[in-house]
Amino acid sequence: MGTALAGAWLSAGHPLTVWNRTAARAEPLAAKGAALAATPAAAVAANRLVVVCLLDDESVGEALAGADLTGKDIVNLVTGTPGTARARAAWAAARGARYLDGGIMAVPPMIGVPQAGPYVFYSGSRELFEEHREALAVPAGTRYVGEDAGFAALYDVALLSAMYGMFAGVAHAFALVRDESVDPGALAPLLSSWLTAMTGSVATTARQLATGDYTEGVVSNLAMQVAGVPTFLRTAEEQGVSAELLTPYFDLMSRRLAADARNGAEDLTGVVDLLRG
Amino acid sequence: MGTALAGAWLSAGHPLTVWNRTAARAEPLAAKGAALAATPAAAVAANRLVVVCLLDDESVGEALAGADLTGKDIVNLVTGTPGTARARAAWAAARGARYLDGGIMAVPPMIGVPQAGPYVFYSGSRELFEEHREALAVPAGTRYVGEDAGFAALYDVALLSAMYGMFAGVAHAFALVRDESVDPGALAPLLSSWLTAMTGSVATTARQLATGDYTEGVVSNLAMQVAGVPTFLRTAEEQGVSAELLTPYFDLMSRRLAADARNGAEDLTGVVDLLRG
Repeated sequence: MGTALAGAWLSAGHPLTVWNRTAARAEPLAAKGAALAATPAAAVAANRLVVVCLLDDESVGEALAGADLTGKDIVNLVTGTPGTARARAAWAAARGARYLDGGIMAVPPMIGVPQAGPYVFYSGSRELFEEHREALAVPAGTRYVGEDAGFAALYDVALLSAMYGMFAGVAHAFALVRDESVDPGALAPLLSSWLTAMTGSVATTARQLATGDYTEGVVSNLAMQVAGVPTFLRTAEEQGVSAELLTPYFDLMSRRLAADARNGAEDLTGVVDLLRG
Repeated sequence: MGTALAGAWLSAGHPLTVWNRTAARAEPLAAKGAALAATPAAAVAANRLVVVCLLDDESVGEALAGADLTGKDIVNLVTGTPGTARARAAWAAARGARYLDGGIMAVPPMIGVPQAGPYVFYSGSRELFEEHREALAVPAGTRYVGEDAGFAALYDVALLSAMYGMFAGVAHAFALVRDESVDPGALAPLLSSWLTAMTGSVATTARQLATGDYTEGVVSNLAMQVAGVPTFLRTAEEQGVSAELLTPYFDLMSRRLAADARNGAEDLTGVVDLLRG
């Protein structure tokens, strides 16, 4: 990812000093015009804007331990939790640096390819973000989500968590048809367009969470959906598929209904509250 | 749903005889021009094409026990499993009827509203489908998916199962930001467009399942994604959110990797195989 980002900046004519733990990795970038630094401290010393892209948060602390961060603008693109981002922001502030945390919503091949729609969530110093906005926008789109340094990671993890849920559902769907004479390639466009259509419910869920009225805009209520659950479990059983990816959600639906029969008139939004104990 | 379907046919000028267990429910349809039948047997006797929309499969057997099905074309829109659909097809055949099973991908307000994109999966007698294709297309689009009467239910359940997986992921995402100063309405469009973009992976998964090569087109491989799992679990913990909706999928990812380190170069598609024991 670091190589992809550096390549995008070099292609756009931005002067760049790079350091990589494995020096050979930085050489192709030197061929494109990057200056090479022998140490992280030397790389940091070269410019005010410092973009950090390393394996994990621990590597950041190690690599920058000997660098003078006074007056620097640190943009940390290392994937972490909101908590590690907040701790790293405090660490940077204690060393006299401004700090911006980033959560990259892209894989390396999408970097520098605007039509692939890559973007980065940023949070932390708004001044830093505004001052370097143009440079930050070169490799990928930018979405500034707040002064709290933890928010970029929070948004990043929230979107990727939702994605893993969708992947789990898709895996279950493909498993159901695996031994039948169903071409997965014929099911795929139906699955994609159905899921895309169903993302319309995300806005409804958000409104319900904001107002606290989980019955607003309901089309198929919790009671009806809980009544339909046995069909999903029996189908999985008939097809020889473990329902383990779906049962936790079905269990929470049932718990919400069992807690108060009046919840039966709600949408599925009450599940969100159950996840918070 | 039965009322919505009947209403769409009446609006389109199709003659219709209706029966409802609760006679009062059929009266608004009579006002729109439907003939009322006193018994299911009388409703069946009125026309060759018989559309069944009842609570469950058991209700179908009960309602039609006394009806003469000889020479009838039965279209069963009752939600069930592939197994119940196949059994009901055999039951109809034994009574001299042709049989088509349907799985409705819509909620009642979408019926008869083409721009809402409602459609019905049909499977079973191709002759019946072709002969009544025009009438069937009135309330919702039609997708014929095969002679196996169980396939409509199989496709229906597969798509809805995937949807519940996505809903689970979305619930986790909203739970993560619940106590923060994050407006769920601001997160919603980001979530929707991210999930929509990620549905692009469904076609890749289908190709990988068809060829058996789970490394084709990989952008972020299993080893990298398993390495990222602790970030998701720690973020959930920091935010006070139970990870129960995500852990079953993460566990299967880890199992696939643990089974053979070479699987680390694959996409996440191996999870599908693990669901089938």
